Amino acid sequence: MSELRKDPILERWVIISTERQKRPQDFFLQEPPKNTGGFCPFCEGNEDKTPNEVYSVRRNGSAPDKPGWSLRTVPNRFPVLTVEGEMGREGVGIFDRMNGIGAHEVIIESPDHKDTLSSLSTSQFTDLLCAYRERIADLKRDSRLKYVLIFKNHGFAAGASLEHSHSQLIALPIIPKQVSEELDGCKKHFELKERCIYCDIIRQERDQKERVVSENDHFIALAPFAPISPFETWILPKAHHCSYEHAPDDLLESLARLFSDTLKRLDKVLGCQPYNFILHSSPFGMEDLDHFHWHFEIMPKLTKTAGFEWGSGFYINPTPPEEAAAILREAKI
Amino acid sequence: MSELRKDPILERWVIISTERQKRPQDFFLQEPPKNTGGFCPFCEGNEDKTPNEVYSVRRNGSAPDKPGWSLRTVPNRFPVLTVEGEMGREGVGIFDRMNGIGAHEVIIESPDHKDTLSSLSTSQFTDLLCAYRERIADLKRDSRLKYVLIFKNHGFAAGASLEHSHSQLIALPIIPKQVSEELDGCKKHFELKERCIYCDIIRQERDQKERVVSENDHFIALAPFAPISPFETWILPKAHHCSYEHAPDDLLESLARLFSDTLKRLDKVLGCQPYNFILHSSPFGMEDLDHFHWHFEIMPKLTKTAGFEWGSGFYINPTPPEEAAAILREAKI
Repeated sequence: MSELRKDPILERWVIISTERQKRPQDFFLQEPPKNTGGFCPFCEGNEDKTPNEVYSVRRNGSAPDKPGWSLRTVPNRFPVLTVEGEMGREGVGIFDRMNGIGAHEVIIESPDHKDTLSSLSTSQFTDLLCAYRERIADLKRDSRLKYVLIFKNHGFAAGASLEHSHSQLIALPIIPKQVSEELDGCKKHFELKERCIYCDIIRQERDQKERVVSENDHFIALAPFAPISPFETWILPKAHHCSYEHAPDDLLESLARLFSDTLKRLDKVLGCQPYNFILHSSPFGMEDLDHFHWHFEIMPKLTKTAGFEWGSGFYINPTPPEEAAAILREAKI
Repeated sequence: MSELRKDPILERWVIISTERQKRPQDFFLQEPPKNTGGFCPFCEGNEDKTPNEVYSVRRNGSAPDKPGWSLRTVPNRFPVLTVEGEMGREGVGIFDRMNGIGAHEVIIESPDHKDTLSSLSTSQFTDLLCAYRERIADLKRDSRLKYVLIFKNHGFAAGASLEHSHSQLIALPIIPKQVSEELDGCKKHFELKERCIYCDIIRQERDQKERVVSENDHFIALAPFAPISPFETWILPKAHHCSYEHAPDDLLESLARLFSDTLKRLDKVLGCQPYNFILHSSPFGMEDLDHFHWHFEIMPKLTKTAGFEWGSGFYINPTPPEEAAAILREAKI
């Protein structure tokens, strides 16, 4: 079983992943996986090569773990955390550890190996956003879990090990440091101003316009003021809400349209570069926060994290967000 | 001039680097630089291809910016921050920014293109560690600066853009977030226990032995309990001191021996993989801290930072540090 260990100074947790255990020689080959047209466990027809599905979209009455799906969610075959077991919280001298309890799932976005997320229809994209919502709602029922992180690694440089288009979720028994810091920052602003900082950002950006990429009735896509990566783009609902899992179908359909539009702009401008995106939503048991506002952050993987970034927590971004937003805004898609 | 911008939620600063400004097409080619045996501005004889040196080791009476050096420190030709100019602190609506004031220097570790840091003699390695000390002491005299981060990116995947062996320093007008968090964590421990947490860690690790890689009279190399990267190794002075720049020559010579030994072990075990290292030392004006302990952290670049790490601040490490330490300890170098 994996182990969760806490850095005693930074209060940062590390997962020592025994399922993925590596010895020195395993690191020697760090080449991108080749697109050999070979076997893919995520393609339709290969359902028996993944663990049993926990959620799927099947509009044709087909049976679970058989062909006939348009979206499929399965436990990760090499999970970094697992549902079974005791929490095992304990001290090791001055250090703290616990067992790797949690969940790690893969959301396969299409049965077709050739699809990318930006090529999906609005209805398929909406199904994906609904799948995120349903999985969060389901995992919430496990009282040991405190947070579900939903993210996508697209392309080898962004951390994807399989080419077939998929997102992932990792459910955690701890509210992660990055999420706590974001909540704390938002709370500080609310205590000063009695306003949600994301609502304030949306107001200022719509007013100034220079960092807005696009918007529709319910959502806005913008380049943040202090982005850590070039062409970083956030998509936020215009109306205040802290919990993604409460979003109704029609809102998620509206999000699918703007999300797809944004990914197409990024593909057009950057030539289909690798990217990560992350859903920021409130932790379990905090479903009515005035100070937090759910949203997605999309980060193209165009620069390297090196000694300066590791040591300082600063980031060097060679593209001003005003310029990135203008280029994305004007992209012909 | 570059610009420093603060994320209003996470209080994380980003450098919008105009000296390195990039448009979309500049990101298309992300291949490693080829070792063509071509021109290198850091090689002896090419001193006129870098800005004028600010520090060098020349034991033969040779003139500055001419051949005859064994170590040379020059301003970075494409600095992310520069010394000239006003601070220009200002608000932009709800956001905060200032001018990119600071310093960015390159420490060229050898005149010979073929050398790597682990191949340097003890005397050359000691010269390098003394150069770090002298540059910190010099930059401290600029009262606008609050911290100097010294680091090395070795290999393309770790962020090096030139092959010739070099370290870098970036002096900052703000104590960086990562350093503040480390200081805060150490202070919290001291307030509880009246002891330096690094001194506690050294005691526990020497007692348990399973994460110790090697030691000499003055220094210890160990795998930390919760490493973010496989084979991460820290080198700490056994005696408590918070400020690197107060270390005398003989202590730095002892450090050079253990540092070189550690890099040789990593090279042997991992096959000369890319790595970063970072000097952790106290900020300017904090030279007598009971709760902080200077040290180096070496992080081999073997895994990718992907969506999960960006979103959570957790790290997934596939190699338990006990195993990494045993392998490094037993390496025949």
